[in-house]
Amino acid sequence: MSELESSFFNVDRQGPVVRLSMNRPEKANGMTPDFWTELPRLLQILDSDETVRAVVLTGEGKHFTGGMDLAAFASIAALFSEEPGRAAYALREKILQLQGTFSAIEKVRFPVIAAIHGACIGGGIDMISACDIRLATRDAYFSIEEINIGMTADVGTLQRLPKLISPAIAAELAYTGRRFSAEEAQAFGLISGLADDREGLIAAAMEMARDISTKSPLAIAGVKRNLLYSRDHAVDDGLDYMATWNAGMLRPEDLTKAVQASMAKKQAVFANLLGEGSLAI
Amino acid sequence: MSELESSFFNVDRQGPVVRLSMNRPEKANGMTPDFWTELPRLLQILDSDETVRAVVLTGEGKHFTGGMDLAAFASIAALFSEEPGRAAYALREKILQLQGTFSAIEKVRFPVIAAIHGACIGGGIDMISACDIRLATRDAYFSIEEINIGMTADVGTLQRLPKLISPAIAAELAYTGRRFSAEEAQAFGLISGLADDREGLIAAAMEMARDISTKSPLAIAGVKRNLLYSRDHAVDDGLDYMATWNAGMLRPEDLTKAVQASMAKKQAVFANLLGEGSLAI
Amino acid sequence: MSELESSFFNVDRQGPVVRLSMNRPEKANGMTPDFWTELPRLLQILDSDETVRAVVLTGEGKHFTGGMDLAAFASIAALFSEEPGRAAYALREKILQLQGTFSAIEKVRFPVIAAIHGACIGGGIDMISACDIRLATRDAYFSIEEINIGMTADVGTLQRLPKLISPAIAAELAYTGRRFSAEEAQAFGLISGLADDREGLIAAAMEMARDISTKSPLAIAGVKRNLLYSRDHAVDDGLDYMATWNAGMLRPEDLTKAVQASMAKKQAVFANLLGEGSLAI
Amino acid sequence: MSELESSFFNVDRQGPVVRLSMNRPEKANGMTPDFWTELPRLLQILDSDETVRAVVLTGEGKHFTGGMDLAAFASIAALFSEEPGRAAYALREKILQLQGTFSAIEKVRFPVIAAIHGACIGGGIDMISACDIRLATRDAYFSIEEINIGMTADVGTLQRLPKLISPAIAAELAYTGRRFSAEEAQAFGLISGLADDREGLIAAAMEMARDISTKSPLAIAGVKRNLLYSRDHAVDDGLDYMATWNAGMLRPEDLTKAVQASMAKKQAVFANLLGEGSLAI
Amino acid sequence: MSELESSFFNVDRQGPVVRLSMNRPEKANGMTPDFWTELPRLLQILDSDETVRAVVLTGEGKHFTGGMDLAAFASIAALFSEEPGRAAYALREKILQLQGTFSAIEKVRFPVIAAIHGACIGGGIDMISACDIRLATRDAYFSIEEINIGMTADVGTLQRLPKLISPAIAAELAYTGRRFSAEEAQAFGLISGLADDREGLIAAAMEMARDISTKSPLAIAGVKRNLLYSRDHAVDDGLDYMATWNAGMLRPEDLTKAVQASMAKKQAVFANLLGEGSLAI
Amino acid sequence: MSELESSFFNVDRQGPVVRLSMNRPEKANGMTPDFWTELPRLLQILDSDETVRAVVLTGEGKHFTGGMDLAAFASIAALFSEEPGRAAYALREKILQLQGTFSAIEKVRFPVIAAIHGACIGGGIDMISACDIRLATRDAYFSIEEINIGMTADVGTLQRLPKLISPAIAAELAYTGRRFSAEEAQAFGLISGLADDREGLIAAAMEMARDISTKSPLAIAGVKRNLLYSRDHAVDDGLDYMATWNAGMLRPEDLTKAVQASMAKKQAVFANLLGEGSLAI
Repeated sequence: MSELESSFFNVDRQGPVVRLSMNRPEKANGMTPDFWTELPRLLQILDSDETVRAVVLTGEGKHFTGGMDLAAFASIAALFSEEPGRAAYALREKILQLQGTFSAIEKVRFPVIAAIHGACIGGGIDMISACDIRLATRDAYFSIEEINIGMTADVGTLQRLPKLISPAIAAELAYTGRRFSAEEAQAFGLISGLADDREGLIAAAMEMARDISTKSPLAIAGVKRNLLYSRDHAVDDGLDYMATWNAGMLRPEDLTKAVQASMAKKQAVFANLLGEGSLAI
Repeated sequence: MSELESSFFNVDRQGPVVRLSMNRPEKANGMTPDFWTELPRLLQILDSDETVRAVVLTGEGKHFTGGMDLAAFASIAALFSEEPGRAAYALREKILQLQGTFSAIEKVRFPVIAAIHGACIGGGIDMISACDIRLATRDAYFSIEEINIGMTADVGTLQRLPKLISPAIAAELAYTGRRFSAEEAQAFGLISGLADDREGLIAAAMEMARDISTKSPLAIAGVKRNLLYSRDHAVDDGLDYMATWNAGMLRPEDLTKAVQASMAKKQAVFANLLGEGSLAI
Repeated sequence: MSELESSFFNVDRQGPVVRLSMNRPEKANGMTPDFWTELPRLLQILDSDETVRAVVLTGEGKHFTGGMDLAAFASIAALFSEEPGRAAYALREKILQLQGTFSAIEKVRFPVIAAIHGACIGGGIDMISACDIRLATRDAYFSIEEINIGMTADVGTLQRLPKLISPAIAAELAYTGRRFSAEEAQAFGLISGLADDREGLIAAAMEMARDISTKSPLAIAGVKRNLLYSRDHAVDDGLDYMATWNAGMLRPEDLTKAVQASMAKKQAVFANLLGEGSLAI
Repeated sequence: MSELESSFFNVDRQGPVVRLSMNRPEKANGMTPDFWTELPRLLQILDSDETVRAVVLTGEGKHFTGGMDLAAFASIAALFSEEPGRAAYALREKILQLQGTFSAIEKVRFPVIAAIHGACIGGGIDMISACDIRLATRDAYFSIEEINIGMTADVGTLQRLPKLISPAIAAELAYTGRRFSAEEAQAFGLISGLADDREGLIAAAMEMARDISTKSPLAIAGVKRNLLYSRDHAVDDGLDYMATWNAGMLRPEDLTKAVQASMAKKQAVFANLLGEGSLAI
Repeated sequence: MSELESSFFNVDRQGPVVRLSMNRPEKANGMTPDFWTELPRLLQILDSDETVRAVVLTGEGKHFTGGMDLAAFASIAALFSEEPGRAAYALREKILQLQGTFSAIEKVRFPVIAAIHGACIGGGIDMISACDIRLATRDAYFSIEEINIGMTADVGTLQRLPKLISPAIAAELAYTGRRFSAEEAQAFGLISGLADDREGLIAAAMEMARDISTKSPLAIAGVKRNLLYSRDHAVDDGLDYMATWNAGMLRPEDLTKAVQASMAKKQAVFANLLGEGSLAI
Repeated sequence: MSELESSFFNVDRQGPVVRLSMNRPEKANGMTPDFWTELPRLLQILDSDETVRAVVLTGEGKHFTGGMDLAAFASIAALFSEEPGRAAYALREKILQLQGTFSAIEKVRFPVIAAIHGACIGGGIDMISACDIRLATRDAYFSIEEINIGMTADVGTLQRLPKLISPAIAAELAYTGRRFSAEEAQAFGLISGLADDREGLIAAAMEMARDISTKSPLAIAGVKRNLLYSRDHAVDDGLDYMATWNAGMLRPEDLTKAVQASMAKKQAVFANLLGEGSLAI
């Protein structure tokens, strides 16, 4: 499974759970060009592996991530020697690509749990806003840093954060670029739980991922897709979509397994979703 | 008014306030087939009675509700002996019907206050998410139980809960199916107030309902409809709808009554909305 | 700059920051007809002045505002002697105009910070819900008062408040019209920070405004527009709009200034946006 | 099947096809209060009868329909002696009910074909706009008559007609209330085919209905639901819904039958959808 | 009424009908900076004059309009000597202003009828797409000229034309920039009627405007607003808005007048909407 | 450029125009598994080649295409031996993939012109509905064949066709599956032009493509993106997006070239958009 070797991430597979760890600790896991292509590449591989059921996203070293590496701006700057209308067109394409890196987190069928320690700055907030669940160490801290370097954050923070926490608070954080703490983040509803240190954090995140991986992967995929659908639609629309979804996906097999296992005080064992082979056109 | 007798609910009428209490305490108010048809039937009757101005929803016995009764799954399971495409079509219709039970709460012109004690599990969360206000006892507890029995919750939790509390928290609860406490629920913004025990809870809910029933029922109906409209539309759309609504509904009678009563240090008495007779085609 | 003289507001200009202070303290800054026309007039002037970068909104006297002045209802009442269909049409136009006063806050390119002390009642909540950031004194208090005078709030509270705080809480406040405290408001996520008294409050708000005014006004305008866009659109739509926005707006000048200033441990000085002259057709 | 006897409609059942014919020829099938309640009642009964696969809607006598009977306005006029805000609230409810009569056409699982001869005026256009297919005699004529009697059409014409034909043309017709001919209506795309006289029209409509009734009722229901969904959503949303729909509904049984019948040069015989019994909660 | 004097338009008032005629025939009514500010200014004045009930839009000389005058591009070109991000921001503001000129047509309460002869090029198509009804001479011709001068049309054609005619045809016309004839335009549904020459065209348009001006101005305003609302919303949303609209606007006065006049074979005379005085805050 | 060799398509490059011709004439260009993967693969390659400016889509042999090849159903049928909930999940993924083949046509920056002769059946209609412009021979014919083989069309016809032609007509065609002619299709607005035979058709399509390829590729890309955006959004949203788009994309270079060329009676030569190298992250 060497395709999981990566120039930016450590990939640690533990049964149905995979930990992707940003591995450029000497640069605070700054998001180099490699980062932007490697994350969606790895996620797509994991999504097509029917045995994967949850992913944990962490960082090596002292910090989760310091955000966009300035090197990644270089290719953008190069555009501006071109005819300005064409440069703008190309820049739009480039930003869409960068956004695609984080939207890839929403496209996989399993939850991605961010486990954040130390700094989570700039692009880091764009990234964790696209994750399904977030845990942090007590000493983690956050900042929508883009406004402090003279730009409008454009890879997802302004779109996703105000749909996770109070938009009133999200606005204040986006205008001031001020640092906020893990405890604040938990009070805002952004963070689901706090750990004392990085070791405890990773243990908690892996434990949560293992717990999720024991549940029906079909039901989990349904939760993920329908939560995302509901976020972006009116309630009546969401209900109709949900009914249409379960019209095909709700069948007795998993319910029966769950009930029987519960009666026998055992853990139910649910079958994987179908693998990529079944899905090829 | 015998049409308010019900095989599932106790109906307790106190002037303009009606308490509907799930009355199957020996089964933790599990939602039997009767539940699903009785709730919308009762709400429709109350909605057409112009003297009703608020409803409180409670449960008899130790728990608010344990959610869907497994018996209700039986009729679903029976579908699967049919041709599978037609079974899926029928299942979609059935889920839409079940969803309709809770959407009926949103369709009545008055607020429905859920008063929750003990367990509020599975379908219980779908139900309280459709209510207008929620109170609970300190020892109440909650769980999106569906994921633990191998299915994706499909009668409203995934659509409505993330529009009441942080979607970040809603996702964590939906993926893990973990139990959460009334105090957590209050911190999430789901619960408006806590009582020490069931007796105090019901007293508080009835008091709140009585307070609401002294206000203009026309203004209350306007608040309900416009809050629901705003939830599902952009702000500019909501403002336009609100202006169009009040173009017809805002008239001096109730304002004058309110101001005169306030000057006289009395309680204003507002007329009911027109009764069902006026509404028949 | 005498066009900034106002019959309702004190206008205090401090460099790039302008404080608009409601100045009818003897009537608790009740919103007279003057208020409704002066606020958008002043905002439009400030918006066309390229040197303005942030606005603070305060009230003179003991209270922020007691909301709609009853005098403003008089012109509405006068409508009802007309043919009722035409009266309804005229009332809709009038409500749209009143709503426009607060929507003007969203249309300017810079953030508007509300600094609230004492009472913030009725129309006051409509107004602060349209602001970008809110600070308050510890003894400030709030109430969606409209329901207590027999009407459905129609100038923005029902549309904007549930998109700032939990809609579950917003509903409870709208149905009961109960008073809530600044600390509650902070816990709901409505208020970003508390001060001990009015003096401290205004100092804090002005400091925050000055801080924001040191940032790139182009980036700030991008944050404002994209936050508002994201509130009203699905995430994918928001991302596309963001990419299209920055295709034109993201250029190296401000980033370079920011990086160079950071290296030199200085404050970057960003150019204003282009003034109104450049914008005339 | 006496529940299909109706005070307004002739009901003619021919195998899987049912013809509903407005039967008040002496009044040009003006829409009396009976009309508004009978049409949705009959459609609901037919929808719950699994053997029904298509409906044809016609009128007895010289005209399809002259639209709303003035008697139906009487109950509306009665409202206006009440408190005006409450009258407006009641009127809104009443209009929603009237709209519901035509929306019922969209809610049944089978296509409804309108066969129009003579006059189709006012409410008649609201009605045929909600049908799935429209045929007419060459001498049929149409008019959005509401504007000529001093009112804005409010039961569907302004909402549905501009989504069937050019909104530019729909606007002209709605502002002028001018009569337009069947040939114009065909050129606009409103009418799918013309017959020489009423007899030929009904024969053609019944023939089309019979043809549709030989097709898979599951596939037909899917076409109906997805066309309506697509009308009201963006293309990407519609594609997602379609894929989710067919995830459950597309199974080999009907395709196999169709292919085998085609090879054997026979007509495939498709099973009905499941009947109402399977759908009860 | 000298405020109706205009540097770009001839204003011809004939009772309740006003004809605005572009009056720069020597330049084919090219849209100079004056045009862009004068059109919305005049429309706003007419909208606040309660006696105006319809507007006809024509051009003096040989052509309706040749579209944007190149002089109007000059102020745009001047922007590009500025810092490029700020230039982009200013350009966006400027395009929004230009779009506002045509959106003003949609904001007035009465229909605007475009009467087109000769060339209708570039900005001319943007303009007529925002009108409510369009008539033309047989020799009129049209072209989405923007693509031929190297730019994407940005003041409304791409947004409104495909919502008036087949988007398939609109796309072909937008990509090729080819000239199309009045007869084609009529077949597309864009044009409601053809006249033999300019004189006949203006007579027909004025006659249609006079006819509309005899109808209830309240009902006409309702048609306009609801057609625009329906264009931009799903059908269910449109129906709800329509019911809410008529809850306030539908009252017996105009219906009674219409019925009585019809019985007496006379023309009903409907009261004006309320004038601007009633609408001032 | 051997990556343009294809197992299903002939690829004919003529300067900036590329013709993709389905090349399985012995099977009426039935859509085999190869078809579904080759079309998006080729389009992506052409999109990243900055010199390509228009594509023409044709078919070899007697027919444009007979639609989905039954072989492609085989992999679907194989799914149904699996656990039914997981089979449904997999089928949804597969349908999304198939839809992606046609959505790829909308994602490229240049117009795709379909040139249709002979039969265009089933999947053929899904495909041409996703193209930008359609031409046909007079003897071409069309049918939404899916309904005749017992299934609901699910790769785009029901979503896109009713947004190209009258939804009233689209519904009739979808319910009956009847054959319709090229002349009908032209009257519906689906087809922009008719040729006498395949040779003339291809000549006309190539000529149109060459004409488009002489225009500014930046302006053409803007037309394409904004037409698609407008289709799926309200007009105000579309206008805002358009203004934001041109804020970055409208620059003097192309306009100047166009004006100078026009004065010199020459053809302007516009620069390509930036190539893929500039766009890599």
